[in-house]
Amino acid sequence: MAHTSASSAGSGAKAPDSSRRSERSRQAIFDAALALVGEVGYDKLTIEGIASRAGVGKQTIYRWWPSKAAVLLDAFTAGIDEDYEKGLPDTGDLAADLKTVLRATADEFNDHAFQAPYRALAAAGANDEELSRTFVARLMEPGTQVYVNRLRRAQEAGEVAADIDVRVAVEMLLSPFSQRWLMRTGELTHAFVDTLVDQALRGLRPRD
Amino acid sequence: MAHTSASSAGSGAKAPDSSRRSERSRQAIFDAALALVGEVGYDKLTIEGIASRAGVGKQTIYRWWPSKAAVLLDAFTAGIDEDYEKGLPDTGDLAADLKTVLRATADEFNDHAFQAPYRALAAAGANDEELSRTFVARLMEPGTQVYVNRLRRAQEAGEVAADIDVRVAVEMLLSPFSQRWLMRTGELTHAFVDTLVDQALRGLRPRD
Repeated sequence: MAHTSASSAGSGAKAPDSSRRSERSRQAIFDAALALVGEVGYDKLTIEGIASRAGVGKQTIYRWWPSKAAVLLDAFTAGIDEDYEKGLPDTGDLAADLKTVLRATADEFNDHAFQAPYRALAAAGANDEELSRTFVARLMEPGTQVYVNRLRRAQEAGEVAADIDVRVAVEMLLSPFSQRWLMRTGELTHAFVDTLVDQALRGLRPRD
Repeated sequence: MAHTSASSAGSGAKAPDSSRRSERSRQAIFDAALALVGEVGYDKLTIEGIASRAGVGKQTIYRWWPSKAAVLLDAFTAGIDEDYEKGLPDTGDLAADLKTVLRATADEFNDHAFQAPYRALAAAGANDEELSRTFVARLMEPGTQVYVNRLRRAQEAGEVAADIDVRVAVEMLLSPFSQRWLMRTGELTHAFVDTLVDQALRGLRPRD
């Protein structure tokens, strides 16, 4: 799962007609794939089903992608690559920035339509090692890296102690969130997110 | 998943023959269910398959359990209820105690035969809300509670600050472990476990 609030910004660039048609088909295929996997689960998702829902021929899909997993992963990353490049906000207040992003992410993961495709892919990945390696490399790892980068900057600024393992610190911040969501071990409330951020940062500060 | 190193201690109690036969059948059914779910996954697991592998009639299983989920959950908890009652070690050194238990747990979860049934059940639970609620209530929550109890004792002893939310602290300790394992986002090494414990405890200490 990606722990950054994803926004779907439209592209303002002008493109020739054929490329615009392609872009419309691509987007229709992504929308269909995300909707379908949330409804039927990964195992029952088919290229035929995606094509039919998107109103395109299945050859159109096979021309661009080798498998349903490839379609899905592109569909997920299409919406969030921009967020990943932008990185986390940096107002100089690490706790406030983390709370802002994780509260928005909690709201998204409490929205069934948004989270259903993630859940289907994550559950399929738990059982399917190859799928999960791709899911992690394409989606989870870049999402984690956004936090690692923000914490590294805080470390350089002296807000985080020099001897902290930033990677493990990010896992301590994000994994409780993921686990509550995926295994339904607890609610994703703003109060939970705030406590998580406060307790995580408490252990990262330089010792006097 | 249960984050306590499970030991399978035999019972020394003498039982009448029929009850011993029952106990042998029960154990054979548990062994068969755990082996099979690790091999074929939760969706393809059947009561018939378990009965056949265990060498019992399927009516024997239906007499004791209403569903395959019920068999599996009893099979998992049979081995670990004893560990849950015993609780975590308490040598007075919280960091050392947590490292001892989590290192042993890492060794177990790096063992394919041990972890395959957990993985199958956890993956099935991610997609199946009712199953996951039972899985969490019967297996994950009691395992988490063992850590909550140990940290509460440390809080009473003044090793953990009074204003720490112990529940969230335990999630910060255990969820990164679960996530690395379930989503294959990283290795479960002793070095990782040690860093996790040290960084988690660093944030829990009372402020001077």
